[in-house]
Amino acid sequence: MAVGWFYLTFYALCFLGLMCIILTICWMQLWHGGFAWDGTILMFNYHPVLMVVGLVVLYSAASLVYRLPRSWVGPKLPWKIGHAALHLLAFILTVLGMVAVFQFHHHSKVAKLYSLHSWLGIVTVFLFACQWFLGFAVFLLPWASVWLRSLLKPIHLFFGVIILSLSIASVISGINEKLFFSLNNATQPYSSLPSEAIFANSLGMLVVIFGLLVLYILLVSSWKRPEPGILTEGQPLLRDGE
Amino acid sequence: MAVGWFYLTFYALCFLGLMCIILTICWMQLWHGGFAWDGTILMFNYHPVLMVVGLVVLYSAASLVYRLPRSWVGPKLPWKIGHAALHLLAFILTVLGMVAVFQFHHHSKVAKLYSLHSWLGIVTVFLFACQWFLGFAVFLLPWASVWLRSLLKPIHLFFGVIILSLSIASVISGINEKLFFSLNNATQPYSSLPSEAIFANSLGMLVVIFGLLVLYILLVSSWKRPEPGILTEGQPLLRDGE
Repeated sequence: MAVGWFYLTFYALCFLGLMCIILTICWMQLWHGGFAWDGTILMFNYHPVLMVVGLVVLYSAASLVYRLPRSWVGPKLPWKIGHAALHLLAFILTVLGMVAVFQFHHHSKVAKLYSLHSWLGIVTVFLFACQWFLGFAVFLLPWASVWLRSLLKPIHLFFGVIILSLSIASVISGINEKLFFSLNNATQPYSSLPSEAIFANSLGMLVVIFGLLVLYILLVSSWKRPEPGILTEGQPLLRDGE
Repeated sequence: MAVGWFYLTFYALCFLGLMCIILTICWMQLWHGGFAWDGTILMFNYHPVLMVVGLVVLYSAASLVYRLPRSWVGPKLPWKIGHAALHLLAFILTVLGMVAVFQFHHHSKVAKLYSLHSWLGIVTVFLFACQWFLGFAVFLLPWASVWLRSLLKPIHLFFGVIILSLSIASVISGINEKLFFSLNNATQPYSSLPSEAIFANSLGMLVVIFGLLVLYILLVSSWKRPEPGILTEGQPLLRDGE
């Protein structure tokens, strides 16, 4: 597929990712009083922003490093380092996002990790941590054999896709949960679709569209780093099913 | 990979799917008074059950038809018909699940389609309908050319995976939402993790595990109907990214 078409999709993705971040910041700023790292509800407001930035947008950017046509030529190592470094940055922001919500719950004496959203979220972050350390140990450090790498590669790719899917499911359930909290007992309840509800629901759908586009590029597109020889045996397929 | 290993995974999947259905029925029966098709909250109780049965378990079963080793030999048409028929049954149950919640909202004079869960759910069902009709028209009816089929096949496979992922995200946000409704103002709130919360959260995580196993079989496993010749060009890949 033409490089021009790739860059069109790439810029559309950048725009969508940026919109997801900006809209999350606006939601917290306009309807929830902004941000402060002080244990109050203003500290909680960092949680959705850092999760969208880290676990969705930066995670996706890191996953797509090998789709850049520039990565197709020359040595692979700098791109591997970039892939690992971006994922590490995404992970650090994700952990900060968790600190924000834990500190708020601790400060407000609210129980932690009780909702299904939080259960799914914590499992997603745990899988992300395992994926990063395993990826770093096997694919970046030089000790692993070609056999081990080609054995683990399909698993690494599969969990890459799965973690993104779980992140999006976590974000959707998180936005839904936050709206039920903030619009509970409001003069305009969630069911009357006040402006905040329309705004945050649209943000949720935008995150879904962003995720689908990333998954499309990861799963289906032909924008792939040409990789002659050793690892082709381990390439997994999106199997036929019509 | 050995056929024995496939069947082990297959039976594990059947067990997990059955558990998802049974636990959803138990949740509605034990904590919400059971079922009645009468427009009351007892009619709503059909909604989670029919969605889990139709949009998750039967949808997955239909998607996996071509992974059965028996489908690998002999003519493909009977398996295509089975694939389409199972998906149609899944779709009918899904629509009934939607009727259950719409009738309840109508009867209780509650607004429809306001939460992010409902927005995502309705988009998922719409995509499912498009996928079925397009699949039926292009892959089951005899008019479409080999060229058109091989062109649309990666799209069909991609949306098959995407609809399942969105279904699971919808189910997760739906369970989360239902728990916030039913445990709001309860003597034991959601945050104190009463037995219903633990039960339904566990059900949600079980649905996630079921979905991940289905996605693993669809995306990564080598249990694929051998397809010599014409369509191999259109086979999409889960691309390399380590």
